[in-house]
This record gives sequence, structure tokens and C-alpha cells, in this order.
Amino acid sequence: MRSSVSSEPQTVELPTYDDVRRAAERLAGQAVATPLLESGLLNERIGGRLLVKAEPLQRTGSFKFRGAFNKLSSIPQHERGGGVVAFSSGNHAQGVAASAKIREEIGERIAAERGATIVRPYDDPGVIAGQGTVGREVAAQAKALGVRPDAVLVPCGGGGLVSGTALALADDLPGVPVYAVEPAAFDDTKRSLGAGTRLANDPSSRSICDALLAPMPGEITFELNRRLLAGGLSVSDAEARQAMAAAFGYLKLVVEPGGAVALAAALTGRIETRGKTIVVVASGGNVDPAPYVEVLGSASDTP
Amino acid sequence: MRSSVSSEPQTVELPTYDDVRRAAERLAGQAVATPLLESGLLNERIGGRLLVKAEPLQRTGSFKFRGAFNKLSSIPQHERGGGVVAFSSGNHAQGVAASAKIREEIGERIAAERGATIVRPYDDPGVIAGQGTVGREVAAQAKALGVRPDAVLVPCGGGGLVSGTALALADDLPGVPVYAVEPAAFDDTKRSLGAGTRLANDPSSRSICDALLAPMPGEITFELNRRLLAGGLSVSDAEARQAMAAAFGYLKLVVEPGGAVALAAALTGRIETRGKTIVVVASGGNVDPAPYVEVLGSASDTP
Repeated sequence: MRSSVSSEPQTVELPTYDDVRRAAERLAGQAVATPLLESGLLNERIGGRLLVKAEPLQRTGSFKFRGAFNKLSSIPQHERGGGVVAFSSGNHAQGVAASAKIREEIGERIAAERGATIVRPYDDPGVIAGQGTVGREVAAQAKALGVRPDAVLVPCGGGGLVSGTALALADDLPGVPVYAVEPAAFDDTKRSLGAGTRLANDPSSRSICDALLAPMPGEITFELNRRLLAGGLSVSDAEARQAMAAAFGYLKLVVEPGGAVALAAALTGRIETRGKTIVVVASGGNVDPAPYVEVLGSASDTP
Repeated sequence: MRSSVSSEPQTVELPTYDDVRRAAERLAGQAVATPLLESGLLNERIGGRLLVKAEPLQRTGSFKFRGAFNKLSSIPQHERGGGVVAFSSGNHAQGVAASAKIREEIGERIAAERGATIVRPYDDPGVIAGQGTVGREVAAQAKALGVRPDAVLVPCGGGGLVSGTALALADDLPGVPVYAVEPAAFDDTKRSLGAGTRLANDPSSRSICDALLAPMPGEITFELNRRLLAGGLSVSDAEARQAMAAAFGYLKLVVEPGGAVALAAALTGRIETRGKTIVVVASGGNVDPAPYVEVLGSASDTP
């Protein structure tokens, strides 16, 4: 059920809406159908309606469970004996861009040696399809509320969540623009969308948004994103912090820095919000007490 | 549809299950049907299954919206011209027990002078029925999960939330024990249940659980609670703080001190949790950044 395209030198296998639908079936009763949260005070502030998809309430505290579970449960029985090798797009603010490529190579070598299945953090059709269940849920929940979103904003590191979400929404809410939101210092998807080809981040870049520090867009994720996204937006670390504080004060939701960038984009008017209904995905809440305390201590954005 | 009883010198009008059902109808589309949250790590820790009813995600950040909305929307049209006088059971850690009675008298005098409807914080059948919608939702959500709770633990100040919840569960999940959980220094309901009559707290008592500082059980709430509750439990302020930190780390949910006491009771083994399914209500998340930062800074209870 996958189409192959060869817009780049290498042919990549793209997931389809059917893959997202099957992922939703696999995840039923396993993943949390996280709520769309809303605050009257935040609505007043943006002059519109803000609906926040609360993935910190997901199992493991972020959307990542969806893609990982879908990928693992789709491994054929006869391939399961070799186990799984997983690596991360990084949760370290220092030097992740430089080390990500090395990690990937190490992971692939170990997987080859042991006959294991490799689970990439984002550039995998099964992972993307799993993340896409966020989009399906958003569409169903918006329908239940009787609203059609004017835009959907999604945090973007390697692009798995936003590409999967856009893939689902292209079928479930066709015509609704979906935006990738990145830290300003890691705006590779935004720039790549502009250039029409994948561009890397400066390896010396730093950001508190430790979940979003991929070195460049994935091959598969970018191929989807360039077809499906309305564009890329970016926010500063200071704006992400303010959004974390707003989520604390208005939504009572713990959101990690990278998980707060889409909310930050909406609160700082990166897109038109007046009179609009905007869905933002808060993608995760895995933040340690110490940095959280620092953010709340310095932030002014509470009711 | 209300029965009158005269077990105390004064006759009190008790809300019934039908009042809760009607409250649920009024609140449909107004209140949030807050999710039951769950953490695999917390489940492991208690050796059972812990389901957390997340009222911080309610409109206004606590369950209080339910009772207030139900009460206000049940005021007959011809009585609405006089407006409403509301007073609180207190959000101040200092001296609230002493001043609560004065506030109530002031509220009643203003209401009488202006022909306004008085909205009491808990000792009112309409308010109690509104809070009872928490119990209805818990029952429906437990059923959807295919579980029957072994116990339901509810924070208790004046007793509106726990009495309403118990009223609903007596019909929806008959036989499931419901417990009031209080701060140790404000365990008036626990002691009153033991004595069979309403006992006050020491006016000099202090607690960080500022939402739970009622001076004594309400007349109506106690009349319901003594019929419906399995008992009262109490926790220390330090235990409430640890539960707030656990909610941050495991559930990604901001919970205020008083909102965390039922979770604290489950985490500290005040009731048997091994092999059991326990529902706790996290009743609110309205806590300022400064005290929250202090709690996270000192607490050790995170994953």
C-alpha cells in the first residue's frame, strides 16, 4: 500500500493514509486518545479559539510511543527473534547535531551484526504512520466539537510527527493548512521547504528544545512534508519558555521545551489567530524538575 | 425529587441521584469530561492500578466549575434579576477557619439586601449535585476501561465534591467504597464520621492545602457523607507535596496542594493498593508558580 517516489537520488518508500489507519487499529487500547485542551483565557488572548492536543498525557509522556509501538507491532513474527535496536534523535542540548550521524551508523552496524530490526526515531514509514494517529484524533475531536480548524501547528525535529499528522489530515481534513514549528536555531525544515531540498542545521547551534535537535530533515519525512505542509514557522527559546509557563498556568499541563514550540507560535502570532480556530500539538512533557523550575521562575506568562 | 431528613436539629434538604443526572445534562458541552490518567510507573509502584481523574483539566482549573455552573443554571428565570453572591471556603492558608463564618454571614446579608441568590461553596444541593458529575464520569470511564474500582478516593474540604461523587457512585457503582481524604490538620470530616456528629477543626490549624481549609463539615455534605462514605483518610502536607511532584513527573499534570491529597493517600498506602484498582480524584491545579517551584525544588518523588 506504499508508493515509491524518486524525487531525490535515492528512492524512498512513503507511508500512506492506509498505513495511518492501520496504525490507529494497532494502537487502539494501547495509546491514550489524548484530549484537546482549551482555556477561555488563552482564547481571549489570541482573539480566537486555541485547541491544544495534549500529548504529555500520552503513555511515556510524549507522542513517541505511538510511532514506536506501531513500528514494533508491525515487525513480522519471523523477524522478531533478532530483537530491536533503537536510537534517538537526541535529548542532549550539547553537540547532538554532530553526534546524531554517528549514533545512526552505530545503530545500523549493531542491527546488521545481530540480525535485529532497527527502529529509527523518525525516518521510517511505520514510525511516521504511528505518529499520524495524532492527526486522525485531532480530526475526529474537532468534528465532535463541531469545528473545522483554520490551521494545525505541529512541533518538528526530524519531522516524523508533523509529516504523519499532515498525512492523516490530508484525508481527514483536506484543505486545512498544517505547519511545522521549529526552534529558530534548528529551522532546517522551514529552510528546506523554502529551498525545495534538504538543508542541515549549523552543527554549532544550541537550543533548550532538546527533543527537536535533529541535524536535518529526514528523507522520508521531508518528501512528505514538502508535498503536504503549508509551511514552516520558528520560535525563539525564550518564546518556548513562555509557552511552557502558559501551559502550566492556563492548561495545568506540563510541557517540555520542544513540546511547547507550536503553542509558542500561536501565542506569539506567527500565524493569524484572530477569529480563527487553531489546533496546536503539545508533543511531550518529559522535562526534569530543575529546568522546569528555572522556566517557571523566570517566566511571566501565567494568568 | 429531594428528600428531607431531620437527623440534626435543623432539617436539611438532600440532593438525590436525579439531581446529579440533571446536573450532568446541564453541564453537557459546558464542563470538560476530564480524562482518567494512568502511569505504568505509578501502577508498578503501588502494585496495582491507579486511575487519576484529572480535574485540573476542567474549565477554571478545578472541579468547582461543575457545582457553580449547575447551581447558577438552575436558578429560576424570575429570580435571576437580583444577581448572585458567592463566597469561598477559602484560598488563604492563614486564618481561614476563623474568617469563614464571618464571610458566610457577610454573604448572606448582602444577598438578603439585594434580593440576590447566594451560592455557597459546598453546602448547597445544587452545588453538590454538580460536583457529583465527577462520580458519574468516573463510573462511565471505568466501565469503558472494563474495570470495577476497588476504592475511590476524593479530596475533602467542606465535603461538596466527595459527597456528590459518593451520591453518584452509590447508584452507578453500588458497593464501591468512597473515602474522603483530608489534610491531617483539617481532618474534621474523618473525625466527624467517627463521632457521628459534626466536629470543627482547631482554628489555629495551618496547611498548604489551601483549597481544603473549611472550618467544619457542611450540614448537607455531612448528612450525605455519614450515609455514603466508607471512611476518612488524612495525609500530611509533606505527603501532599510529594504527590504534587509525582503528578508532575509521572502524569505531566499540574496539581495544587489540596488537589493532591487523594493521590497522596494512594501513594502512601493509606488503603490497600496491591492488586487493586484505585481511582483518585485530582481536584484542581490552581497553584501559583512560586509555591509550585518550591514544591518541585524540594520534592524527590519524580521518575
